[in-house]
Amino acid sequence: MPGEYIKSVVKTIPDYPKPGIMFRDVTSVLEDHQAFSQCIELLAEKFRAGGFDKIAGTEARGFLFGAPLALAMGIGFIPVRKPGKLPRATISEEYELEYGTDTLEIHEDAVKPGEKVLMIDDLLATGGTMIATANLIKRLGGVVEHAGFVISLPDIGGAQKLKEAGITSYAICEFEGD
Amino acid sequence: MPGEYIKSVVKTIPDYPKPGIMFRDVTSVLEDHQAFSQCIELLAEKFRAGGFDKIAGTEARGFLFGAPLALAMGIGFIPVRKPGKLPRATISEEYELEYGTDTLEIHEDAVKPGEKVLMIDDLLATGGTMIATANLIKRLGGVVEHAGFVISLPDIGGAQKLKEAGITSYAICEFEGD
Repeated sequence: MPGEYIKSVVKTIPDYPKPGIMFRDVTSVLEDHQAFSQCIELLAEKFRAGGFDKIAGTEARGFLFGAPLALAMGIGFIPVRKPGKLPRATISEEYELEYGTDTLEIHEDAVKPGEKVLMIDDLLATGGTMIATANLIKRLGGVVEHAGFVISLPDIGGAQKLKEAGITSYAICEFEGD
Repeated sequence: MPGEYIKSVVKTIPDYPKPGIMFRDVTSVLEDHQAFSQCIELLAEKFRAGGFDKIAGTEARGFLFGAPLALAMGIGFIPVRKPGKLPRATISEEYELEYGTDTLEIHEDAVKPGEKVLMIDDLLATGGTMIATANLIKRLGGVVEHAGFVISLPDIGGAQKLKEAGITSYAICEFEGD
């Protein structure tokens, strides 16, 4: 199975950041050259023929996989960031967290109308940040129909939520029972 | 000149984040595949023969260049993050900002004693975050004598500050008069 080695490298931290949560830690994948390069190869293989113009990655862990994948696929990388971090003119999108809200921003000129954008993040849980990222891209006229992840937690329902928003998701490995 | 094209792609935002500052924006480099891949090639060329075991990159922009460079050099990547973002046991280092202080963290097991670590960031200004990152690595027993950047602002004195801490810095391009 292609993602088996990567899955074996992911460390699980029980009760982080709060009791009852099994936190899946991708930093151990980054520290392992073989696992990290396999991630980028598998994502590139999956998406290379998709005709994407750009990759969008959301601060901060989305940068770790999105930027190398953009390089591997020969396309540009768009950082989606927390408020006040991007220096040029931006648009912003608020989204709901379990408690309260958060906001993401994108440069106004990061996506041109009709450009096909692939979203990349380390982990798909609720899908909330991906929906917010997709909304930013769509508001700039971009087309966003695909998202790629290293890890998916299918029991949390993010893939279903993305599907309802017209976005097909792919993950290298899954952790069930979370 | 090797970094000339990259320098031409960097956007300058006057008076950001406050009056009198000429902000050098690397997001435009990320969006330009040619410039981004040249960055990684030039850094890899510079450091490939250095015998490094790992690359450390500091949240969040250090992730954008450090992670792809680690992949290109065939070594692991260590994320250095803001407090509370790393899930396993960490050590932390406080450092001074112009007003107030900030803190960075690293996983305790990210560096083994004697490992040679290269620090990568997008831009060298005062060098404060790099000194804090180097202190974290040294406290874990790592050896840190080199730092690489896409951009350096030599008038701010970061290279000199790093030199005094025993760290040689290299930047692809410089912007003087900042």
